[in-house]
Amino acid sequence: MAKLLEKPILYGFWASTCTWRVRIALNLKEIPHEIKPVDLSKGAQHSEEYRKFNPMEQVPALVIDGATLVESMSILQYLEETRPQKPLLPKDALKRAKVREICEIVVAGIQPLQNLVVQDRLNEDQKKDWVKFWIERGFTAVEKLLSSSAGKFCVGDEITLADCVLVPQVSKGRDFKVDMEKFPRIERISKELVGHPAFVAAHPKNQPDFPTRTENKE
Amino acid sequence: MAKLLEKPILYGFWASTCTWRVRIALNLKEIPHEIKPVDLSKGAQHSEEYRKFNPMEQVPALVIDGATLVESMSILQYLEETRPQKPLLPKDALKRAKVREICEIVVAGIQPLQNLVVQDRLNEDQKKDWVKFWIERGFTAVEKLLSSSAGKFCVGDEITLADCVLVPQVSKGRDFKVDMEKFPRIERISKELVGHPAFVAAHPKNQPDFPTRTENKE
Repeated sequence: MAKLLEKPILYGFWASTCTWRVRIALNLKEIPHEIKPVDLSKGAQHSEEYRKFNPMEQVPALVIDGATLVESMSILQYLEETRPQKPLLPKDALKRAKVREICEIVVAGIQPLQNLVVQDRLNEDQKKDWVKFWIERGFTAVEKLLSSSAGKFCVGDEITLADCVLVPQVSKGRDFKVDMEKFPRIERISKELVGHPAFVAAHPKNQPDFPTRTENKE
Repeated sequence: MAKLLEKPILYGFWASTCTWRVRIALNLKEIPHEIKPVDLSKGAQHSEEYRKFNPMEQVPALVIDGATLVESMSILQYLEETRPQKPLLPKDALKRAKVREICEIVVAGIQPLQNLVVQDRLNEDQKKDWVKFWIERGFTAVEKLLSSSAGKFCVGDEITLADCVLVPQVSKGRDFKVDMEKFPRIERISKELVGHPAFVAAHPKNQPDFPTRTENKE
């Protein structure tokens, strides 16, 4: 049982939107945790030391309750199921489905396509508009869903996992010059959350590994 | 309440692995349902008729309990939460996390990259090994996870959502000449399931819209 009492450790990278999602949820749920940076820009995820407990060689990884968990949506839902305080999923099943729809559009429909490992396989000409294209395509879908699901936040008036996933993606959208005026609901919700203490603390620029001279890396 | 008693309708396409996942789960849970094909090869997802109840213009869409749900993982989890018979998620939270990890590697790590809409943006030279590359990358990760999670199936000895998601992806892997000998655990589990009645009934070739002369489309 000793292991269960240990503080969770989040292995991640300041610029990784997948890590960022988990940081927000840990903060919202007020789960005491440690953050250990893994420098993706130096390939630290492939080091022998890191592989020892995370053979998946990726971030985020959450060491919690005696296990190592990977994949951000899986981690988020594990936190929700084992730490139900400050819930991030609504009680109503249909509303939960709406939360997960929005998450999935970002997690499966946008993020995998903006990943550096994908960009590395494109030529310079393709790279130019690639990320912007996929973000705008995904945001178009999210914006439609929000027309019926949103209240103050993505689904109703309480912060949910959809908000944890959307906010980092909006930031990435700005990096890639996405015209946010085309997505007024996303823009409004993201502005609503940007000053929330849990979101502020999770922001890349407030991470211990945030470089003084930033380069956009993921 | 009348709407709640209506049979769910699954709008999908025979070759779509995302639709296929949902077909398997509906069969495993023995949920009576109707299947309505949407011919993606003819762009039927963009028709006015379809957009009326699914503005997302994609498949699968499940019309159920008076709502239209999209995004396969969201649909699968909604079915699990509202139709708990023949559960497809383990009771133990850590095991549930393992199920969702495997799902996420396929749903976010492989499928979005093999999608036709992505392939359409590549040149002929890139297309050749593109899909195979991403499937093998994802399967390498799944194979590692299975080394500690698998029993008879992906996680333990009961069929879970991970199996519903993995089996269609293995079939797609074969289409793209992935060498399955490199993934012996995936291969064993997929062979274990291929003859299961719920999986047989969900197979593309047993769908009403399966063409007599097949072309690989997704």
